Amino acid sequence: MSGRPVIALLGGGQLGRMFIENALRYDVEIHVLDPDPNAPCSTIADRFVQGSLDDARTVVDFAAHADVVGIEIEHVSVEALITLKEQGKRVIPDPEVLRIIQDKGLQKEFYAHHGIPTSPFVLLNGKADLAAHDDLLPGFLKARTGGYDGKGVMPIADAAHVDEAFNGPCVLEKHVRIAKELAVIVVRAHTGGMASYAPVEMVFDDRLNLVDHLRAPARVDNGTLERATELAMRVADAFGAPGIYAVEMFLTDQGEVLVNETAPRAHNSGHHTIEACASSQFDQLLRCYLTWPIGSPDAARPSGMFNLVGTGGEGIPEVIGMDAILGIPGVHLHLYGKQRTRTGRKMGHVSVVAPDEASVDAALALIKAQCRIRPRLA
Amino acid sequence: MSGRPVIALLGGGQLGRMFIENALRYDVEIHVLDPDPNAPCSTIADRFVQGSLDDARTVVDFAAHADVVGIEIEHVSVEALITLKEQGKRVIPDPEVLRIIQDKGLQKEFYAHHGIPTSPFVLLNGKADLAAHDDLLPGFLKARTGGYDGKGVMPIADAAHVDEAFNGPCVLEKHVRIAKELAVIVVRAHTGGMASYAPVEMVFDDRLNLVDHLRAPARVDNGTLERATELAMRVADAFGAPGIYAVEMFLTDQGEVLVNETAPRAHNSGHHTIEACASSQFDQLLRCYLTWPIGSPDAARPSGMFNLVGTGGEGIPEVIGMDAILGIPGVHLHLYGKQRTRTGRKMGHVSVVAPDEASVDAALALIKAQCRIRPRLA
Repeated sequence: MSGRPVIALLGGGQLGRMFIENALRYDVEIHVLDPDPNAPCSTIADRFVQGSLDDARTVVDFAAHADVVGIEIEHVSVEALITLKEQGKRVIPDPEVLRIIQDKGLQKEFYAHHGIPTSPFVLLNGKADLAAHDDLLPGFLKARTGGYDGKGVMPIADAAHVDEAFNGPCVLEKHVRIAKELAVIVVRAHTGGMASYAPVEMVFDDRLNLVDHLRAPARVDNGTLERATELAMRVADAFGAPGIYAVEMFLTDQGEVLVNETAPRAHNSGHHTIEACASSQFDQLLRCYLTWPIGSPDAARPSGMFNLVGTGGEGIPEVIGMDAILGIPGVHLHLYGKQRTRTGRKMGHVSVVAPDEASVDAALALIKAQCRIRPRLA
Repeated sequence: MSGRPVIALLGGGQLGRMFIENALRYDVEIHVLDPDPNAPCSTIADRFVQGSLDDARTVVDFAAHADVVGIEIEHVSVEALITLKEQGKRVIPDPEVLRIIQDKGLQKEFYAHHGIPTSPFVLLNGKADLAAHDDLLPGFLKARTGGYDGKGVMPIADAAHVDEAFNGPCVLEKHVRIAKELAVIVVRAHTGGMASYAPVEMVFDDRLNLVDHLRAPARVDNGTLERATELAMRVADAFGAPGIYAVEMFLTDQGEVLVNETAPRAHNSGHHTIEACASSQFDQLLRCYLTWPIGSPDAARPSGMFNLVGTGGEGIPEVIGMDAILGIPGVHLHLYGKQRTRTGRKMGHVSVVAPDEASVDAALALIKAQCRIRPRLA
């Protein structure tokens, strides 16, 4: 690299925006590609290009002058990433990592192959194959590709409901009784050195299948914290390429920890790290891109994060209860600058860092009670 | 205000850049005026205008569509701010506050009038008047207007050196024996509510007359911490308008605390607040602008900040020792994105947040030993 390093980011949503917010304090140049001309990164990228992330030609052209190519979303052209890597660019995640992760079937097989505990599963070509696997019912049927934030996932109670299942290549996963959902973000440097954030506990909104809020560290026994960390490290080690790995896990009611899925990028489960940790997930990602040393993932205090998800339909967003939450010590509001809200859309988040867990809980309860995003009334 | 609030910022240097870095996580629109087309804010402001900050017409036109007008540097047209205030915009600092602060003579008289301890002084029309005030020698002669970062300030040892003094309206201040230099940043809300950060200790580079590094909190006895905080609160209360007041003070070798000068804006002495405090000085400023509640100034851990000042002449900047410092836990590098370095120019800073003061000191020593910015060798 000569001069300021150029990072080409595929995707310009809130993850990209938070990445840029941190990257602004270093002397780097960030280019962003996104199909939405009003994407949250569009006004702050050094260069913003509107275009498809799936189209190999578009992606290769966009990143032609970059030193590093990164992603903000998994649904990008792997073919383009392979070409860019062949051109000598540093591509993070590695195209092979992304190829596996894009396909929930390959991903499950990857865990099984590496002896990483995951829920029982089978790959199916379509729903006709379901009948032969009623030992895995009740379970979840997941489309192998294209799913996101709960889309492409359906519960199957028993063989009687098979007709309702969508068709095409999918994974049937046996339902496990979940005590808690955990996540660990691991940073892997180009040297192979790794660091991990303390495991967090994610509480889902069942209706939207999005994270409602999270607590860091997770409130589980030390043995479970250690197992979750060790498993996440094994996942990153199995992938064996530099980058950030957000490993989502189930803690079963039997006390087992199972890997659910991995995102090879900054992740909703790490938003609290912006304020709670010495080096945030976005800072670590930049360090990976530029082969800088891994930052410290340490947190001095417990923290929590609440997702601000649009409610009440579509329109120009209005934040309700902002003053109430901004008055709470250690509370940080993040709005993603999206011009339209709609029910279920991630519009922002609120994090809280507090001296103790009771204060984190009190703040989270207040945030949930007071704060929401809805369409502005005309 | 309807829609996103528009903040017009006069000055687009590093303070503006760090202000925007924080403001990006809220849904606000930021316009910046600066004479330098390559100013650090030029690429990230929602709207950037190149133009003079001194020219009233330019400033009034620039801020025509803003809801709030703020400053990043004191040398701006007060006349324009008065006009903008009359137009109903929220102007922070208040033009009257800025008028007093721009003139070191008025500023000293303001402290004297409000019974705020400050070093003995007299206002002079020119150096011919010096002879009548040799009771204030040795002292410092300061130009009443136009000084910055040590420019416009000269020490006067005795009457024999009067001929070397620059001429024009100035303040002669008696030299006081300084044990430490302290600073306290006070936030004053539109409601009159106030909060302050813990006093910091600034260690100057005598050669450049810039802050070399700071430690937060200052390492002085509790009585001194309380006096410094109380004095800074009195200064903000005397000004009586919303905004941020960075109050610089001398702790004399007799244990007295004297107010030296005040900046009505974000300030170098508050850079550590970005990582060390729940709400940073830049966040507080935004809250003042938008009449949001004051944030928490609390810090969970001690911290330090080292200014990265250009050395070795002029050119395209190159950071030396970056890897060494990025490897230290809790260290945060900030580069301001300036395209040219020159000796004495503030190019960035490094902050450190650590579990204890000894770790802060160790990190500061390592940063100072390892890290510098110099022109890139051709």
